[in-house]
Amino acid sequence: MGRTSGVGLRVGVVGLGLVGGSVARLLHAQGVDVTAHDATAATRAAARAAGLRVVGDLADVCAQEPDVLVLAVPLRAMRSVAAEVGRHVRGATVVTDVGSVKGAVRDAVRSAGLESRYVGAHPMAGTEHSGFEASDPAMLDGARWAVTVDGTTPRGGFVTVLRLVTGPLGGTVHVLTDEVHDESTALVSHVPHVLATELLGVVADAPVRDVALGLAAGSFRDATRVGRTDARRTEAMVTDNAAWVASALRVVVRDLEQLVRALESNAPVGEFFDRPDPVRGPAPVAGSGERLRVDLDDAGDWRTALAGAGARGAVVVDVEDGAVVVA
Amino acid sequence: MGRTSGVGLRVGVVGLGLVGGSVARLLHAQGVDVTAHDATAATRAAARAAGLRVVGDLADVCAQEPDVLVLAVPLRAMRSVAAEVGRHVRGATVVTDVGSVKGAVRDAVRSAGLESRYVGAHPMAGTEHSGFEASDPAMLDGARWAVTVDGTTPRGGFVTVLRLVTGPLGGTVHVLTDEVHDESTALVSHVPHVLATELLGVVADAPVRDVALGLAAGSFRDATRVGRTDARRTEAMVTDNAAWVASALRVVVRDLEQLVRALESNAPVGEFFDRPDPVRGPAPVAGSGERLRVDLDDAGDWRTALAGAGARGAVVVDVEDGAVVVA
Repeated sequence: MGRTSGVGLRVGVVGLGLVGGSVARLLHAQGVDVTAHDATAATRAAARAAGLRVVGDLADVCAQEPDVLVLAVPLRAMRSVAAEVGRHVRGATVVTDVGSVKGAVRDAVRSAGLESRYVGAHPMAGTEHSGFEASDPAMLDGARWAVTVDGTTPRGGFVTVLRLVTGPLGGTVHVLTDEVHDESTALVSHVPHVLATELLGVVADAPVRDVALGLAAGSFRDATRVGRTDARRTEAMVTDNAAWVASALRVVVRDLEQLVRALESNAPVGEFFDRPDPVRGPAPVAGSGERLRVDLDDAGDWRTALAGAGARGAVVVDVEDGAVVVA
Repeated sequence: MGRTSGVGLRVGVVGLGLVGGSVARLLHAQGVDVTAHDATAATRAAARAAGLRVVGDLADVCAQEPDVLVLAVPLRAMRSVAAEVGRHVRGATVVTDVGSVKGAVRDAVRSAGLESRYVGAHPMAGTEHSGFEASDPAMLDGARWAVTVDGTTPRGGFVTVLRLVTGPLGGTVHVLTDEVHDESTALVSHVPHVLATELLGVVADAPVRDVALGLAAGSFRDATRVGRTDARRTEAMVTDNAAWVASALRVVVRDLEQLVRALESNAPVGEFFDRPDPVRGPAPVAGSGERLRVDLDDAGDWRTALAGAGARGAVVVDVEDGAVVVA
């Protein structure tokens, strides 16, 4: 989908860290009317200096009745911020977020009484750095986004968020359930963060640490890059997605134990290195091949239809008022 | 150390894959007289087309009595190639290699009767690609090299290899024992390769595979890059260094098991993410701070002195005829 203009759209962004800052700056650059807030005064000042309109109070963002309010605070703050939004939000504002664990955010939103306004979202983009100073609209260039739905997702809000993400934010969207999102990101993001952290820890504790670091080249640098992420951010991501992360790590532990036993007993290890291999090639192109037009029916079957296609790899290719096309 | 010219030096390179091809092309570009050989006719043709002098027989490389003969064949071929070199090498030729596991190569060299000519070497540089077509002299730009010694390492050969690596090859050298090298590379190269392979395997087997790959972004791409290395090359590296790799993986398995148990029981996991953290910062600058001039004495104490400094992170900063300075 080509990127459409954001002129006329009004968006509030709460939290101006790496992701929230990048979202706010990209939307502003695309002509969206953005009102932003961050709990930290220094961050508000930096965001103002970068040309954003920033207010000092979360209630003031809500009072503007933006079309969409984006919660971009850390996972560990999501519950309290959602509660505060619940007290102040009004009008037709749709609430979305950019959190990396969708089940946990939905729980927070539900507790805050925001469910009927809520559509989950998560851009698969980031770096090991944190804070507004690390934010960069280019970080979101061509990003894959998950937009998550459940049985309560509002139809109008869903269309608004899809248009925001595929339009001014320039994203490619998989519509997913929270569960499929959280299982998938456990595999391709949270477990990689854990393994990178573990690699750094093993080297830090090794007697040969200094020379090992001296010899470290590309394989170690790449394998540990996300291990340099703020430890609290990684911890929050992993604990908020504990069940899926633990389940994936159980498989890792089992496989590594088998490999260790084979190495220690001189047994063949070829099987470990020769596993089913559809993922060694280049990254798959967007979409699943099937093209499906889903009417946003009153009964709400569109939610399961779209999430089913999303789980098979389909992405959104067109958003109409009454239908969404995936392929 | 500034790069010194290789003019006047004669080097044979056996094996023209990713590393051997890069070494041969860099040496040729630096004015070294290079004679190369590869077992595959197509590779020989490609190397000739790239301007290298290539001979069709390993014996012909040996017959030229190069100052240094570099064994750059895959680990799994090292034993048979070393044996063949043992039958043909003559004159004062020094034998070195670029293999990623030094203990295993030394065993092969010892079996071939080449020990008195042998000085081990290993550039910490590479990519997930293979073959001469992937070779690139720039891959070795600024690379850290290990040069390995034991009680039999010849003094003259050692100086020759140090001059080759720090001169025309432009490397920075840690002098190490095989054991310290192999333990270090298990940590910063072989275990990262195993974990990258495992991550690809876990995702390949997952029910959400397609959407997970659709959502995969930088953290997964970086974490799995070296998992896309030729499976046989990774397997050879891991099995040839089985003891050190297994020992490091045991630690990984133990730590991940603890994490899984904590995640499954809602116990605190902060400790996992807060481990001693000297490695999260920028890569250390070369060297250990101490400056040490080691005379290449007849008694051979220089070997332990240099390997001891190397294990503490020191690198070679000057090579004289009768001494080596590390810092």
